[in-house]
Amino acid sequence: MNVNGRAWRSIWVEQNGWSVGIIDQTALPHDFVTRSLLRDVDAAEAISLMRVRGAPLIGATAAYGVALALREDPGDACLERSCRLLAATRPTAVNLGWALRRMRRALLPLPAGERMAAAYVEAAAICDEDVTINRAIGEHGLRLLRELWQARKPGQDRLRILTHCNAGWLATVDWGTALAPIYRAHDEGIPLHVWVDETRPRNQGAALTAWELQAHGVPHDLVVDNAGGHLMQQGLVDVCLTGTDRTARNGDVCNKIGTYLKALAARDTGVPFYVALPGPSIDWAMADGVTAMPIEERDPREVTEVQGRLANGGVAAVRIAPPGVTARNFAFDVTPARLVSGLVTERGVCAASEAGLASLYPEQKGEAE
Amino acid sequence: MNVNGRAWRSIWVEQNGWSVGIIDQTALPHDFVTRSLLRDVDAAEAISLMRVRGAPLIGATAAYGVALALREDPGDACLERSCRLLAATRPTAVNLGWALRRMRRALLPLPAGERMAAAYVEAAAICDEDVTINRAIGEHGLRLLRELWQARKPGQDRLRILTHCNAGWLATVDWGTALAPIYRAHDEGIPLHVWVDETRPRNQGAALTAWELQAHGVPHDLVVDNAGGHLMQQGLVDVCLTGTDRTARNGDVCNKIGTYLKALAARDTGVPFYVALPGPSIDWAMADGVTAMPIEERDPREVTEVQGRLANGGVAAVRIAPPGVTARNFAFDVTPARLVSGLVTERGVCAASEAGLASLYPEQKGEAE
Repeated sequence: MNVNGRAWRSIWVEQNGWSVGIIDQTALPHDFVTRSLLRDVDAAEAISLMRVRGAPLIGATAAYGVALALREDPGDACLERSCRLLAATRPTAVNLGWALRRMRRALLPLPAGERMAAAYVEAAAICDEDVTINRAIGEHGLRLLRELWQARKPGQDRLRILTHCNAGWLATVDWGTALAPIYRAHDEGIPLHVWVDETRPRNQGAALTAWELQAHGVPHDLVVDNAGGHLMQQGLVDVCLTGTDRTARNGDVCNKIGTYLKALAARDTGVPFYVALPGPSIDWAMADGVTAMPIEERDPREVTEVQGRLANGGVAAVRIAPPGVTARNFAFDVTPARLVSGLVTERGVCAASEAGLASLYPEQKGEAE
Repeated sequence: MNVNGRAWRSIWVEQNGWSVGIIDQTALPHDFVTRSLLRDVDAAEAISLMRVRGAPLIGATAAYGVALALREDPGDACLERSCRLLAATRPTAVNLGWALRRMRRALLPLPAGERMAAAYVEAAAICDEDVTINRAIGEHGLRLLRELWQARKPGQDRLRILTHCNAGWLATVDWGTALAPIYRAHDEGIPLHVWVDETRPRNQGAALTAWELQAHGVPHDLVVDNAGGHLMQQGLVDVCLTGTDRTARNGDVCNKIGTYLKALAARDTGVPFYVALPGPSIDWAMADGVTAMPIEERDPREVTEVQGRLANGGVAAVRIAPPGVTARNFAFDVTPARLVSGLVTERGVCAASEAGLASLYPEQKGEAE
């Protein structure tokens, strides 16, 4: 997508042909900073510190991390060690393990001398496929938004969408998942308004989604995470559309903490609640998300401190709680499939259920059992 | 309640016998600062700027605001003007109008020369009654918590309570509404753990509830507002207990934005959801809260900026969104009575319904119709 008129992806191989460029998302929206990853530990650190985040982009970054590792040592031990290092960075996104398994499977059979080049090819393929997938999600989601817009109430002047966290191009290699249909619908001329949840504790909505929508010219308003129930109850939301970091086989979706609450409000108020996801984020081995999903718990300082820009222009963290207060920081929650109106994938829209997913991904049936 | 070993109320007449002292709650938890209100405009400003907040304390402050006005001019015109000024400060809390009507009713019939002294007497009575009410809420709520504790699962080592915003002694004259039973249960030796919602956008949970609980020694953890659904889904909450700024005759409760979302999660997960309130916050004239409640919309900068303490010790606001991003800031939402397990009042616990409230407040039946 465009930043100041120039097309960007969220990850790329730099001009030297080997180091990997990323946008440091912890610096947004205050500064647009890129960083070079030179070794697999840089990739692991970028994932851990959430310089890159979003399930698809985490997978892509891990893939390039393997390529960077093999550049230094193409041996089996290094490949295995690097995969373990990268797999341990974050526990919830299933794309991470998926991308690493794919790299390992592609590279292990090769002679050591061919691995590095093959790793860059495979990582690039993962990135390109992600872009293709997200473009297709945008296409299927666009149809959904178009139908909602055509079914609007008399006098309604725009389609009002609520989203949580950032499932935009910054969460993927390009386009995004939940935001892809929004960009497509906006470009097609459907008048939109997006309610952007700020998404505490890391404020990806305020910092990234608002920044993305602003850059693309999509009308929006930032709201606190607490506001969504009121907005839906008062008839100010036509549809909710979020991403998901991992989707269980039964259609339970694991997304940024707070998503479950919005899905409950949508159900209570009759607002459709759709979740957009790429195939690689489906965990076919997980039968039930609510009971089995591993939920990452992060540093409590993400709760007690908030980062932002001071009036003098500097960027700083401020502490919002009294000294000595303890906090807990669960990064994700699971929205049960029963609350999800449909899953928007690169292969179309399906029911949030095992049957629904199997109808779109029949080849996975065996893998799941 | 105690601050550093000294007993405080949240509002008091100062040693000179006429100016009114308050704790500036916008400075908490970073600094404990008191301020003197010298005129009714000071009281109005303190309410508008949320130096004092919480429905009961807003009412008490408005009452003293009238007393300060009559000190300068005890005439009818001044009394009426002052009541209008104070009534316009915040739209949602019904105690504000209740306290002002009570002051007006008590003072208008008196000769001008007697009004000022009577105003101080009446304001003090409002404060003392609030303390009595909250002590009684604590008593009835304690019984509820004791029953929940007695019915605990084998091996459960503490009663886990989730609260939203601040309904503690800082929201009232003393004791609090939702926190009163918590203080009582803690003092009685029931082992408690409180999940404190930070309560964006103004972070009253992080700033005030955490500060209060810490000062009183009640174990707690701060969480983002997004976390409650996950906590309840994973069986980590035994009961939710919040306050309410205004309760409709049908039992719909209007409380800090986000309360509705927690009530939905409680219903979905089978966690009881109780709301504590003093009689004066019941709006007997409002038949249905969801459709009729006036919801205050505040400055969007409360959403785009967060105040806290810098590492260097200074207190500052940081901006969390890109420049130019617009925001909406709805201060309250309405939780429909059907999601409320019970209302904890100074007269006992009742169903959240017209019949439930009428059973405790039979004398209001006429006023409501």
